[in-house]
Amino acid sequence: MSAPTDPQDEPTATSSGMSRRAVLGLGGGLAAAGVVAGFGLGRATAPAPAVASTAAGTYPFTGAHQAGIVTPAQDRLYLAAFDLTTTSRDELVELLRRWTTIAARLTQGLSAGPFGPASGPYDAPPDDTGEAADLPPAGLTITFGFGRSMFVGTPGPDGTPGEDRFGLADRLPDGLVELPHFAADDLDPARSDGDLVVQACADDPQVAVHAIRNLSRAAFGTATIRWTQLGYGRTSSTSTAQKTPRNLFGFKDGTANVKAEESDALEEHVWVPATDTEASSAWLAGGSYLVARRIRMRIETWDRTSLREQENLVGRTKGEGAPLSGGTEFTEPDFAKEGRDGAPLIAVDSHVRLAHPSTHDGARMLRRGYNFTDGNDSLGRLDAGLFFLAFVRDPRTHYIPVQSMLSRDDVLMEYLTHTGSGLFAVPPGVPDGALVTGEDGTPVTTEKSPFVGQQLFA
Amino acid sequence: MSAPTDPQDEPTATSSGMSRRAVLGLGGGLAAAGVVAGFGLGRATAPAPAVASTAAGTYPFTGAHQAGIVTPAQDRLYLAAFDLTTTSRDELVELLRRWTTIAARLTQGLSAGPFGPASGPYDAPPDDTGEAADLPPAGLTITFGFGRSMFVGTPGPDGTPGEDRFGLADRLPDGLVELPHFAADDLDPARSDGDLVVQACADDPQVAVHAIRNLSRAAFGTATIRWTQLGYGRTSSTSTAQKTPRNLFGFKDGTANVKAEESDALEEHVWVPATDTEASSAWLAGGSYLVARRIRMRIETWDRTSLREQENLVGRTKGEGAPLSGGTEFTEPDFAKEGRDGAPLIAVDSHVRLAHPSTHDGARMLRRGYNFTDGNDSLGRLDAGLFFLAFVRDPRTHYIPVQSMLSRDDVLMEYLTHTGSGLFAVPPGVPDGALVTGEDGTPVTTEKSPFVGQQLFA
Ligand code: HEM
Ligand code: HEM
Repeated sequence: MSAPTDPQDEPTATSSGMSRRAVLGLGGGLAAAGVVAGFGLGRATAPAPAVASTAAGTYPFTGAHQAGIVTPAQDRLYLAAFDLTTTSRDELVELLRRWTTIAARLTQGLSAGPFGPASGPYDAPPDDTGEAADLPPAGLTITFGFGRSMFVGTPGPDGTPGEDRFGLADRLPDGLVELPHFAADDLDPARSDGDLVVQACADDPQVAVHAIRNLSRAAFGTATIRWTQLGYGRTSSTSTAQKTPRNLFGFKDGTANVKAEESDALEEHVWVPATDTEASSAWLAGGSYLVARRIRMRIETWDRTSLREQENLVGRTKGEGAPLSGGTEFTEPDFAKEGRDGAPLIAVDSHVRLAHPSTHDGARMLRRGYNFTDGNDSLGRLDAGLFFLAFVRDPRTHYIPVQSMLSRDDVLMEYLTHTGSGLFAVPPGVPDGALVTGEDGTPVTTEKSPFVGQQLFA
Repeated sequence: MSAPTDPQDEPTATSSGMSRRAVLGLGGGLAAAGVVAGFGLGRATAPAPAVASTAAGTYPFTGAHQAGIVTPAQDRLYLAAFDLTTTSRDELVELLRRWTTIAARLTQGLSAGPFGPASGPYDAPPDDTGEAADLPPAGLTITFGFGRSMFVGTPGPDGTPGEDRFGLADRLPDGLVELPHFAADDLDPARSDGDLVVQACADDPQVAVHAIRNLSRAAFGTATIRWTQLGYGRTSSTSTAQKTPRNLFGFKDGTANVKAEESDALEEHVWVPATDTEASSAWLAGGSYLVARRIRMRIETWDRTSLREQENLVGRTKGEGAPLSGGTEFTEPDFAKEGRDGAPLIAVDSHVRLAHPSTHDGARMLRRGYNFTDGNDSLGRLDAGLFFLAFVRDPRTHYIPVQSMLSRDDVLMEYLTHTGSGLFAVPPGVPDGALVTGEDGTPVTTEKSPFVGQQLFA
């Protein structure tokens, strides 16, 4: 990166010269505070999940796990899946290095590059696109994941095996399977899969979109966006400190979710355990798997369904979110309890019963989904629904059996179509203190910079 | 609307019965306060434009003008254009009555209907869809407009005139013209025009989407959604109390906008004046025209353009937003000022010069646009841009000449494509104190309820 040009080169002799040259720290004073807290030395190892983010707040980027998983679910999401256009392992590593640095910067309220959107060499493009320049960090987290195709390529339609472009085939983690076809799936390939995924969550959508845009820009020539999803309202609480939000069926969603405070449950259901160091997935220890399902809701039909029917389909009350077996929101459902007619109060084919851990050998997942509304179809119906995101320790035990049963038996499915799908291995975090920083103390990319997923390439 | 059913009909004998029956005032105590302030008697006639909304705040629904025009621009937008599927004038009026009541309720933090999402007859669909049940009103405003096709139908491709379905052809306001084709227009009919438009703005996108969804639901059988646009970041300030936001080119946008505090400028440039009561547009006095243009930006190309070039194209600095002729953000541009090479500091073909009132007989507009990001194209480029919204007194003098010049000469156009377009007549507001309220003091629809656009049908 070359030094700022001489002020004499300016087309104007006014104060505009000054502002153009100043490094725009995106979040001002607060961002600077975030940098001090977020980088370098001596913080606790695990991210502090229960710390609520204010609009101006930051979450640490480094830690044992990537941020954006147990982080209290922010209000907005922008997620992008990328396809690699390179076949060079070195270029892939370089991309991950660049991405890691940019993510470390943006999440701490800094601009994508050291000059920011309005300074630096006047005859070069700015190193940040600028639309978030005056916005606070808004609790931004950026979480990276790897798709199966990055390891083994994409099989041909005739079943010919895909290509091991990066020499990673023997590191394919066991859980990164091809998802089976589920009943009633209507998947659009243009909204599914991808070599890489980047989940950006923030309390301001412009901050999340800015992050994806700048990462996409840094991928120019190496990877290209395959699909994206904007989520405007979270549908899960991931911390006991958060009020349960509502999905587009108007029901509270996330009540029985795995919460950041349940450290035992996180070990058991979310984090990939450290096991046999010879195993192909040893590099994934401390990571997780991300399941993404774009689920379109027939909201116009739903909206003509009686309150009784709606509650029976879900198995909970609409107002309070209590199980139909009684109690309040956080009362455990009593699936055995019967009503006056001898039928179970929580219907046998209700969503909550079929999704409940007791139906699946105790398996739970950390849901972190978002509502979406992507325009309308030619009949005037909203293309809206739930962008289901869940982090699990192993999709083979913690997701596929649940989805198989729901797709087949859940009465809610009558109102749902799965239109997009992705499964990604989510590496552990970049360790605290590992980032390389430049003269101004902010992260820079060098050949020594650590990167998300580094264990995979070791 | 029938009365709530007997609690004995409940499938469960638990407390869920109670919460289901309680009328869920959407905003709790604050919403109730909003009702008191927003409805009925004795407030000042004009909406109080400079009152900043908090997340929990409400803006009055009634007043001389509709809210959502000079209201300080909220952070998020959901806009929907509708086509009427009825040809009955009575049904159209009924729809506008229902919409007016629902809008009056929702903007004050109430549910769409008197029972709310989780109470009312258990065997009927709830009268509110519920996803905003726990959210504050978030400064929601709802603004209605009428498209040319509502008056004169849609001309056939062979030029055959459209149909006057509602007996409104002789009330077509003079300014509600067919927009000409502008150079470089690439309009998608599926993103353009419409008989009716509803602009919902709020500081929470879920609140804005909830509003459109419930209005769309109330239109079932009468009108159907033609197109929608989600805007996630505002690109204009409409009050001197607001900091200027940034568009996706990273530039401050809205600096020289007409602001709510400029009451003379509003009369001169935004509100349709009361003139000849015989004129076809007399009913529109106190209203405005809304121009909507979906402008896709080539952001990947832009992001490879030098800072110098970017600033020259716009005519302002990127950091501070000062004119290139010098000064700070709110300094008036000096188009005559030349640099050392004798060329004007603000280029002749820069956006700011070509859009400036001095280039257009003093014409100004109240811009109220939003950034959008609607996925990506098959090349991996973001389908992102600026959803340009402007309110003007007369599009023939205040918009068309400006757009004609920009489309032809503005160097910024190299990075822009207009992909959607709409022009709507925006009626004045429902007068203070005119709403009909039910037993609980909240607005209800009766045959006497006032409605937005009532003057048109008088
Ligand atoms: C649009 C689709 C969906 C809707 C509207 C929906 C809605 C709900 C609701 C309202 C609850 C109860 C509140 C709570 O505990 O969060 C719930 C619980 C749950 N859902 Fe879903 N859900 C959807 C899709 C899925 C999918 C695809 C899965 C996984 C394959 C899933 C797994 C679960 C689980 C595990 C629970 C918690 C059950 C318990 O422990 O009680 N959901 N869902
Ligand atoms: C994506 C498209 C556009 C971009 C990126 C853009 C950007 C800008 C920027 C950065 C400014 C300077 C700051 C300000 O005063 O707000 C500005 C001013 C302005 N723009 Fe645009 N604009 C766009 C489209 C339009 C269109 C379609 C119109 C109207 C036909 C328009 C009319 C104006 C006007 C009237 C001004 C104020 C000029 C003045 O009084 O100094 N713009 N625009």
